[in-house]
Amino acid sequence: MFKHDKNLLQIVKVEGPNPTYAAMLNEQLGGPQGELKAAMQYIAQSFRIKDPQIKDLFMDIAAEELSHMEMVATAVNLLNGHDVNAQAVQSGHIESQVLTGLSPYLANASGFPWTAAYVNVTGDLPADLLSNIAAEQRAKVVYEYLHRQIQDRHVREMIDFLLNREEAHNTMFREAFTRIQDTGSNRDWGVDSNARLYFNLSTPGGQYFDVSNPQHPSFQSPNQPMQQH
Amino acid sequence: MFKHDKNLLQIVKVEGPNPTYAAMLNEQLGGPQGELKAAMQYIAQSFRIKDPQIKDLFMDIAAEELSHMEMVATAVNLLNGHDVNAQAVQSGHIESQVLTGLSPYLANASGFPWTAAYVNVTGDLPADLLSNIAAEQRAKVVYEYLHRQIQDRHVREMIDFLLNREEAHNTMFREAFTRIQDTGSNRDWGVDSNARLYFNLSTPGGQYFDVSNPQHPSFQSPNQPMQQH
Amino acid sequence: MFKHDKNLLQIVKVEGPNPTYAAMLNEQLGGPQGELKAAMQYIAQSFRIKDPQIKDLFMDIAAEELSHMEMVATAVNLLNGHDVNAQAVQSGHIESQVLTGLSPYLANASGFPWTAAYVNVTGDLPADLLSNIAAEQRAKVVYEYLHRQIQDRHVREMIDFLLNREEAHNTMFREAFTRIQDTGSNRDWGVDSNARLYFNLSTPGGQYFDVSNPQHPSFQSPNQPMQQH
Amino acid sequence: MFKHDKNLLQIVKVEGPNPTYAAMLNEQLGGPQGELKAAMQYIAQSFRIKDPQIKDLFMDIAAEELSHMEMVATAVNLLNGHDVNAQAVQSGHIESQVLTGLSPYLANASGFPWTAAYVNVTGDLPADLLSNIAAEQRAKVVYEYLHRQIQDRHVREMIDFLLNREEAHNTMFREAFTRIQDTGSNRDWGVDSNARLYFNLSTPGGQYFDVSNPQHPSFQSPNQPMQQH
Amino acid sequence: MFKHDKNLLQIVKVEGPNPTYAAMLNEQLGGPQGELKAAMQYIAQSFRIKDPQIKDLFMDIAAEELSHMEMVATAVNLLNGHDVNAQAVQSGHIESQVLTGLSPYLANASGFPWTAAYVNVTGDLPADLLSNIAAEQRAKVVYEYLHRQIQDRHVREMIDFLLNREEAHNTMFREAFTRIQDTGSNRDWGVDSNARLYFNLSTPGGQYFDVSNPQHPSFQSPNQPMQQH
Amino acid sequence: MFKHDKNLLQIVKVEGPNPTYAAMLNEQLGGPQGELKAAMQYIAQSFRIKDPQIKDLFMDIAAEELSHMEMVATAVNLLNGHDVNAQAVQSGHIESQVLTGLSPYLANASGFPWTAAYVNVTGDLPADLLSNIAAEQRAKVVYEYLHRQIQDRHVREMIDFLLNREEAHNTMFREAFTRIQDTGSNRDWGVDSNARLYFNLSTPGGQYFDVSNPQHPSFQSPNQPMQQH
Repeated sequence: MFKHDKNLLQIVKVEGPNPTYAAMLNEQLGGPQGELKAAMQYIAQSFRIKDPQIKDLFMDIAAEELSHMEMVATAVNLLNGHDVNAQAVQSGHIESQVLTGLSPYLANASGFPWTAAYVNVTGDLPADLLSNIAAEQRAKVVYEYLHRQIQDRHVREMIDFLLNREEAHNTMFREAFTRIQDTGSNRDWGVDSNARLYFNLSTPGGQYFDVSNPQHPSFQSPNQPMQQH
Repeated sequence: MFKHDKNLLQIVKVEGPNPTYAAMLNEQLGGPQGELKAAMQYIAQSFRIKDPQIKDLFMDIAAEELSHMEMVATAVNLLNGHDVNAQAVQSGHIESQVLTGLSPYLANASGFPWTAAYVNVTGDLPADLLSNIAAEQRAKVVYEYLHRQIQDRHVREMIDFLLNREEAHNTMFREAFTRIQDTGSNRDWGVDSNARLYFNLSTPGGQYFDVSNPQHPSFQSPNQPMQQH
Repeated sequence: MFKHDKNLLQIVKVEGPNPTYAAMLNEQLGGPQGELKAAMQYIAQSFRIKDPQIKDLFMDIAAEELSHMEMVATAVNLLNGHDVNAQAVQSGHIESQVLTGLSPYLANASGFPWTAAYVNVTGDLPADLLSNIAAEQRAKVVYEYLHRQIQDRHVREMIDFLLNREEAHNTMFREAFTRIQDTGSNRDWGVDSNARLYFNLSTPGGQYFDVSNPQHPSFQSPNQPMQQH
Repeated sequence: MFKHDKNLLQIVKVEGPNPTYAAMLNEQLGGPQGELKAAMQYIAQSFRIKDPQIKDLFMDIAAEELSHMEMVATAVNLLNGHDVNAQAVQSGHIESQVLTGLSPYLANASGFPWTAAYVNVTGDLPADLLSNIAAEQRAKVVYEYLHRQIQDRHVREMIDFLLNREEAHNTMFREAFTRIQDTGSNRDWGVDSNARLYFNLSTPGGQYFDVSNPQHPSFQSPNQPMQQH
Repeated sequence: MFKHDKNLLQIVKVEGPNPTYAAMLNEQLGGPQGELKAAMQYIAQSFRIKDPQIKDLFMDIAAEELSHMEMVATAVNLLNGHDVNAQAVQSGHIESQVLTGLSPYLANASGFPWTAAYVNVTGDLPADLLSNIAAEQRAKVVYEYLHRQIQDRHVREMIDFLLNREEAHNTMFREAFTRIQDTGSNRDWGVDSNARLYFNLSTPGGQYFDVSNPQHPSFQSPNQPMQQH
Repeated sequence: MFKHDKNLLQIVKVEGPNPTYAAMLNEQLGGPQGELKAAMQYIAQSFRIKDPQIKDLFMDIAAEELSHMEMVATAVNLLNGHDVNAQAVQSGHIESQVLTGLSPYLANASGFPWTAAYVNVTGDLPADLLSNIAAEQRAKVVYEYLHRQIQDRHVREMIDFLLNREEAHNTMFREAFTRIQDTGSNRDWGVDSNARLYFNLSTPGGQYFDVSNPQHPSFQSPNQPMQQH
């Protein structure tokens, strides 16, 4: 069951309206590395998970991503200002101006509507956790791009918060991966000789990477113990 | 520049026509974890890569994935048999029967056409490599599902070959990740206190995973050194 | 902020696995009249609503629709059974068998992934409420179709519950519409002579409907007072 | 059978070329609340309607919407001017400049191609009519947004005409709804106790809307008789 | 302006309900080579055509394709029968059973909704006419596939009629092409030496086709004069 | 099997960064008439072709189109410059600025991701070749539009080269068509009286094109022998 609390996870403010920033920020509302994508991926993956601790982790993060989506949408809404004016959008989509009456639109920055084609679910924990770790890393990168381009101080603070949360999620998912790393698709890794071949199909070039004794994915300790002095 | 060699990367045979198997196998031709997706993702990522060894790796694997796509399509084509007959498809899409004249169709098993929305490119090497490692893991999982359900001996051999190649690619991408792991989005990880918080938003449940001292993603040695005797 | 409670809004059971029923029920997980659509539409509309009571209504219902989505997905997951087997799906999509490892897939019954193109947001309360009233009516209809075709007793009970909830939401949205019916796009209705014309462009046929003195949409009392005896 | 008359339903003129206005107006050519959507929805719904008067109404309006689409496309074409020049488009899609040679493009203002995912058909008259009433209301709203932002006098006149026609259609559909309101999904409304519950899932907030005695949707008289003096 | 005549272009009958045939026939309602695609392509191309005779041709054929769409949809509707029953669909999409209440669905045979991405418009008459000639040829092929698989006598007659109409349209479009073949993109053909190169990039193989003196596309007389005896 | 050579088919340079040009050029990377579309169409068609010379032709051209895609992407990458800056994009999509870190994005100029819905495959050689001839003609037209709007000298040279290659491919495909023109869907053309009718459904207008004695498509000699003096 889902519940909603009208308090935002963190307060959202903007210095002032800026419909171009609104369009850009839309990327993390309805784009492939955005908050709705993250929430839906973790929710969809969770439905079949049996391990109660991992299921709890997924739903903790999914609920947080929904809450991030709400924050991003709130910022988009504030940046959209008070009057529809497509020509005030210097670049990016104009659907908020002509279609939604300045309401946030579930699409990326260029107006492509969110699609579940972004969501990766395999039912295999190692694969799903790797998907999530990669997704969090990508989300961080997109926030970095937005941080460089958006000069609104308050929006930058929000971006900074969200960016750091992606690092936290990334770390947690690696902790979970470490726990289940000998299961599912990680088993029987590299036992077939075909898993040790390198096809050198692009020239000029050589074989610069080793695949002689392949091991299944396994992370270094995601939380390194603090060194004592 | 791309070149084509009419020899398949590996010979493809089928025991006999089976349009239902053809529809199922279509998943890895034009689905989100399929060969076209993999090829296009690595090609698209490569365009901006400057490190010559990593660029070579990406294009070696991309060319191989295109060659895998060709193998899968060849198998689909053979499984489709000789006469259009939608009712011979017990489950899955019927576009090969009504639209393409038994030619392979660039869609998933249920007929959703391939979309570049599947492709993840960020221009950040740690993020792109994590995306690729996850993509290879997912591809392996889908091949495992197909292996369990397709009884054609020759197709199973092909699936087994392709599945092992995904392991090899996965390993190579981790080797590459290890080399660049102190760059891009992996830098300055966990320096902000927000990166160490855990929001416990799903109840009942607790905080079962550590995020107290987050480190950037880093893999254990993807190729463990051979033990000496 | 969104929170999650691991208790379902209502317990979900199935008599036994039935992957065909799972595919059919998928319509209300990821189809145009399904629960994810409803939740996302009301959430997206709510971001700009200022009236606190109407905003509360939208978020009450949105949270409930997310909870319905969870119920439907839980049923799909149970119906999918324990082993991937595409040929056990008599009709409908097979992505749960070849892609998601029996996990629920965010798509309609035929495998078309959910898209935000389904979501209608205008930022105008009369229009958005009419959209929601219509959406709830359509959702009820789809549940009726599923109820006729799915013989699993427990799933039927769940469908019956969900169907009745759509009636409740429909009623509430009409209550809200009544309250704001003199605002926004409902104002200045029919003042122009072009609003009173009938173009008889399909023949044979006539003008069987009146448009001589058009009034803005307005519902009869959604909750008729109980008659006293 | 469909026939075409080269006379437009109403003459279309523009003050002069304005590719930005063209892109904005594209919303009502190929967007979710646009003319193509309306036409296709009513046509698709009509195929199974048995009541001859309602079927006639649907096809009268569908033919008119196709004629509106032609008007909008004519205006887009005129606004696109004479020379491809993507940089003359201040905001919105540029496909007319780089792809279609200034021909109207069947997409929304930001370039997302029209999709039948916009079309709602249930085969249930109350649900389909409610969908249409809502669709007409939304179309009116989008025209209002365009009217505020487009300063070309002739285009504004066209928008005004089309906006008023949406009111007319809305009124007619409510007349039709009134006639069939005791059929289909409107029957047996609110008989189950689950239809009378309110789940208060968003806090803070209360239950501000009544659902104690739910009645099926029913409109006030869409055409109020003129009051006599 | 578009008008509608409730008489079908040709009477449509079916021997009896067959939901599987309905799903298959859906390909030509809402698929890439179907009637809606054809109608929308010719309408969209026509908006900018100045030559009155060619514009008339395009709209004659567009109106006919809309009328074909109506015929196909009528057949789909009849084939869908009287009761929703997804399990009666042996292969193909099941949206008519779970979503549309047996109404025709604007999608292809496997349930992918129609998209304007199918429509080719360039604003260049030689290119647009070649697109249309190819489209008509493909439509004929799809009807041939359906004719081979659908045993309903009446549906076969309809298919046969429609297939022959595609030949007629194809011929007319070639007549038009012949008239304008020295204009637009056909001009200055092959003047650059790069237009005469052959890159032999697939091996083994050679250069089996001539490109030494390239001429713009030009058809043999589409209507050969009857030979006199 | 596909192989990659790191030398481009032809060297690509730009005068300097221009993110707006990058967005425009994106049309031919990931749009409906672009290089990826062409490559995928010919590859997909080739899988079932038995004639070795025609199969060789298709794969020669497909490999070249992939190589063109690489050239276009290289130009887009160079034009994107060195710093993400969405506001430097005057018109067109901004995904390279907010999502891909300046890497080329597999979408059209307005940001709609590439879809296999663009790809036409019928398994019938006359239809597939006509599709390809039309596709090459459209690609030429789009390059003409880009050539008119992009002032970068080096990019113009690249466009000019690519444009001429489309002419070459077009010519080769017509050569191939001529060879197989009496097969497949070209057989039994115009034998039915329905293939000779003209429905005059758009008025005012007449029948300006002949369909009295329809012949299957057949091109004039694509390579006219040099006239001797």
